[in-house]
Amino acid sequence: MNLVEELKNKIDTSNLWDKNIILERNEYLKVKGSIDTHLYFITTGSLKIFFEDEFEEQIIRLGYQNNFIAALDSFISEKPSDLYIQALKKTEVKRIKKSSFIQMIQSNTENLMLWYQIMGQLIYQQIEREKDILTYSPKKRYERVLKRSPQLFQEIPNKHIASYLRMTPETLSRLKKY
Amino acid sequence: MNLVEELKNKIDTSNLWDKNIILERNEYLKVKGSIDTHLYFITTGSLKIFFEDEFEEQIIRLGYQNNFIAALDSFISEKPSDLYIQALKKTEVKRIKKSSFIQMIQSNTENLMLWYQIMGQLIYQQIEREKDILTYSPKKRYERVLKRSPQLFQEIPNKHIASYLRMTPETLSRLKKY
Repeated sequence: MNLVEELKNKIDTSNLWDKNIILERNEYLKVKGSIDTHLYFITTGSLKIFFEDEFEEQIIRLGYQNNFIAALDSFISEKPSDLYIQALKKTEVKRIKKSSFIQMIQSNTENLMLWYQIMGQLIYQQIEREKDILTYSPKKRYERVLKRSPQLFQEIPNKHIASYLRMTPETLSRLKKY
Repeated sequence: MNLVEELKNKIDTSNLWDKNIILERNEYLKVKGSIDTHLYFITTGSLKIFFEDEFEEQIIRLGYQNNFIAALDSFISEKPSDLYIQALKKTEVKRIKKSSFIQMIQSNTENLMLWYQIMGQLIYQQIEREKDILTYSPKKRYERVLKRSPQLFQEIPNKHIASYLRMTPETLSRLKKY
């Protein structure tokens, strides 16, 4: 069992989910300007997290089945976030309030250690993402992400992966053929 | 006292620094391909963390007095990192081994909570950094970082800040005049 599964099971066991949400394709879970301190677990479907920059969307994260997602800036700071979270297809998520989550994490050392390990993984992934973005060659960006997250390419439509990788869908299609 | 100071004081009190390192200007603390699982605290001076992409350096972090720095990818994964850490001027750092650090953090709940809060801050900063990089307008990138880290502009020479902000030193000088 990986760390994320372990965390999900702990929330299941403690009955801490406060809501089940079903989103239709293109429906928003969260829009710009709102505070969102929930943590979500994707049961089925997929979502993108993005912000708007000069009317263009910049995807910062893609989530699919069995991923946790959050508007992490708002989750941490408890201030309004400029992030949108939108369903890419019909999607079902479970929701837990930050307060319930933090209480669970802090309730014993085992939980605190688990969350601490997951945060370490998250920091690592964010550094790798920063390297991805700053890598000039589209081919290298594609290869880095394919190696790290092969499942992404099974779960998410090409056009969103292309945007996440900062290339056109045509370039991504070409790279996938090699 | 902020969280970082608190952490530094704990390491001081427990006498866990294993080495004091003095670097001359341009000297490397770490080069590509090596494993580095130390955590460093900058006593004086400043450093840049970068990787090489097609022979151009991509700065991912700038550190100055009273900052902790690390080759975070290697620190977390314990694998070789493609990061360089280089002094921008004469710099003095204290070093602690990951094993000593982790032992300290895990020795009691107060320490674990402190580190957990610092990791939260780090994750938040990384998201802001990702938004910075993906923001198209150099002016907006400059304003975002100025607002978040005004001290950076006192401590680090222009040309390195410009590289960190993905603009030419000339563009940065022009933006600073407004």
